[in-house]
Order: sequence, then C-alpha cells, then structure tokens
Amino acid sequence: MVIRNIKLTVVYDGSEYHGWQIQPGEKTIEGIVTEAVEGLIGEEVRITGASRTDAGVSALGQVALMQIESAIPTENLAKAITDRLPADIAVAEAVEVAPDFDVISDVKSKLYRYTIFTGMLRPVLQVRHCWHLPAKLDITAMAKGAKLLIGKKDFKSFASAADQRENSVRTIFRCDITANDDWVYVDVEGDGFLYNMVRNIVGTLVEVGIGRLKAEKISQILKAKDRKAAGPIAPAQGLCLMWIKY
Amino acid sequence: MVIRNIKLTVVYDGSEYHGWQIQPGEKTIEGIVTEAVEGLIGEEVRITGASRTDAGVSALGQVALMQIESAIPTENLAKAITDRLPADIAVAEAVEVAPDFDVISDVKSKLYRYTIFTGMLRPVLQVRHCWHLPAKLDITAMAKGAKLLIGKKDFKSFASAADQRENSVRTIFRCDITANDDWVYVDVEGDGFLYNMVRNIVGTLVEVGIGRLKAEKISQILKAKDRKAAGPIAPAQGLCLMWIKY
Repeated sequence: MVIRNIKLTVVYDGSEYHGWQIQPGEKTIEGIVTEAVEGLIGEEVRITGASRTDAGVSALGQVALMQIESAIPTENLAKAITDRLPADIAVAEAVEVAPDFDVISDVKSKLYRYTIFTGMLRPVLQVRHCWHLPAKLDITAMAKGAKLLIGKKDFKSFASAADQRENSVRTIFRCDITANDDWVYVDVEGDGFLYNMVRNIVGTLVEVGIGRLKAEKISQILKAKDRKAAGPIAPAQGLCLMWIKY
Repeated sequence: MVIRNIKLTVVYDGSEYHGWQIQPGEKTIEGIVTEAVEGLIGEEVRITGASRTDAGVSALGQVALMQIESAIPTENLAKAITDRLPADIAVAEAVEVAPDFDVISDVKSKLYRYTIFTGMLRPVLQVRHCWHLPAKLDITAMAKGAKLLIGKKDFKSFASAADQRENSVRTIFRCDITANDDWVYVDVEGDGFLYNMVRNIVGTLVEVGIGRLKAEKISQILKAKDRKAAGPIAPAQGLCLMWIKY
C-alpha cells in the first residue's frame, strides 16, 4: 500500500473553536477537518498542523499534513473536503508532497497579523476578529519598540509560562506596525514562535503605544528573560495566522 | 412627568439573532436593546425600530425611537447602553428629538447594501456577512437590469407573499452594482421597502448576472405584480441596513 503525503492549506474563523489541536470533548479545527477527510476517503487519518493556534485565533494560511492511502486525486480534493466542512472552515489547497516533508521542522517563515480597532464605536461586524481598544496609539513609538524585536534573540520574556520548550531563541524577520483610519495592524514574521509569543509582543507594544512603557524598554524586557518583565497578553481574537513558507 | 423622545442609532451583527423585532421566546436585537436600556434607567421602555430587519440581517444604521421618563443626560447615553450590550450590538448615537418625531413615517430614505462574494474559496472571515456565490457575474447586465427598478413603481413582484400591506408602490432612488476583486455590492436606496424586497431584487439581479434572465425582463417582472415572476430570494446574511435619513 502506497502512503501519500498530502499538504493542506486550511483557512478558518477560530471564534467558535477551542483552537486547532484535537482535545477530548472539545470542538477543534483539527478535529473537524479530520472528520471531514475521514468521511470523504473512508479511512482513518491523522493530521498534523504546523501551528497550534489557540482558541479564538483565526487563520488564512494554516498548513497541515496528512498521510493517506486513498488514491483520490488531489485536483478536487480541497473542494471535496471543504464541501464537508462548516461555513467557518475551508481547505484552500491540497497538494502531494515528498515523503520526507516535515510540516513543522521544514518551516522557513510564518506571518502572523494582529488587528486592533482604536475607534470609539464597537466594530460590530469585525468584533470577532480584532481587539477593540478605543485609545489613541502612538504608532511611531510602537514601530520604534517593534524594531528592537527584529533579529535572532531569546524571546523567553514573551513566552507563556506554559511553554515547556528548552530553546526560546527565535528569529523575527520583521515586525511592522501599520495604521489605516482607526485600524492598527501588527505584522510579525519569524522562523517560529513560542507559546503566546505574538500576543505577548502585541500586548507589550500596546503598552508602548498608550505611553505606559518607553519603546527603549523592549531591549531590557528581552534581556530579563522573564515573562513578568513584558506587558499583558493581547486577546486571542485579534490574531490571524496569514501564511507559512517552506 | 416629562416624557422624552430619544432616537437611537443601532448597529449590529444580526448573525446570532432572530431579527430585530421582539418575539416571545426568541433572542432579538430589539429585545436585547430594550433590556439594556431598562437595566440602565430602571424603568419599563418600549422601543420602536424604523426597519424590521430579518434573522441574519445586519445593520450599521438602524434607527429606533424610545420614550423615557428618566432625566439621564443624552451625552453618554449611547456608551452607557453599549456597555450593557453583547459584543455584536452597539448604540452609535442617542439624541433627543421632538415629541412629534415619527421613526417610521418620517423616513425620507434608507440604504441597504447587499454583499456577494464570487471567488471560489469560501471567505471564512466574512462568511456571516455575504452570499458566497462562486460564479462569474455579468456586472454590466446586472447594472442594466438594476436601472429598470429606479423610480416610483409598484414592487408587488418583489414583495414576500407574507407582506400584508395594501400599497406596494415605493420609490427606488438608486440601485448601484459595484465590483471590487471577487466582491460584488448591490446598493439599493429607497423611500421604503416591502417585506424581503431587497433580497428578492438581489436574487433576481443575480439571475441576470449569471445569464439565466435577460436584463430587459425586469420591466416585465414589475408589470406582472406577482412574486412568482421574479427570481429566488437572496440569503439573509448578505444584507446590511447602512443608514436611514429623516
């Protein structure tokens, strides 16, 4: 029996789910996608995601790998799986990849976008996908702080205490702050992220934006290697995994 | 006791509600807003909406009128009510109006926007606020058909059979079709609308857009004064009440 390695690009609104990762008794994206694939090809399947997005976090470019025995052609596979998924999840692409493709360790770069709405009036149509923070943010100061995060650094201060990984060194390629009317976006691209790292970075940059923290302090926070040195965590619903490059 | 007439501008994501209008045993926007106001000012309140939006329909400019005895200042009233509302409803504005202001019959003009997404991939982050119709729409033909709806006409063919109103003559000021990438918007402005009228207009214009109906047929449909002459109803979730002018 030939085992085929299929790489899926998965998009979802994470609002109604308990995150990506399968957990007993919880509605998760991985769980729902696995059921859809199993229903389609009639065999048991194990899917591995490149990122374990948290409850409430969305994705426009999650990548997942599955091994299947089915000879089902890949051409219409994305659509066929999507037809079995609820309205807030879809498979954007399904391609066959080499047997040695590793969905986690082959990652070259990931982009996360965090969306903040700073207007007074609650943005009712986008409220599930942003942090509503009615405040004047100093974008220049935030950008100055963000710049200090770029490079290969130890991000222990920005990792959740729940992160068990030994090595907390990661490389951030860019951390851009852009503003458009009342919308502020924080785009963080890196070779990998610690647990809650982007949300902790955003929470800390917002402290800079509202003037509670000087931009230069970011360097000290990094040096401290202590979660307590950084700012509070930003809410999950503002975060979206945009793409993953291999 | 002085009775004050307060005009509210209400915005909401209608996805989770059984429409605007209070109905026993159902979660409605009017019901939730009424509870929030009553909790705030401590008196029983009756709220009247300008439009009875259906289940799943959203609004960025619903208008509602309430009579209150409370002397609460209007300055912070919108925010104080919003603080008691769930994340998908907000009061954008609260102003005191003349005692003879009539929220329904004083309407000069209303704008509804209908959003269609024509791309192949399910737009997971916007799926609650659009009609996902992966098809090539002929925008020029739709605009040609839309033009035939403009003016003071009998719209009986576009009214739900459930509409009990005697007079089905309304004036449509404009019906614009705009396209932006895979997004198509139908903006309909009129002095009033019959029950399901915008959704029936959109469903019929889509028939024109996919080539199942000639644009010129719209005139015949109007003349027929029969719901069966028009196209199918477009789904509720694509519809949004943008504003109401007095």
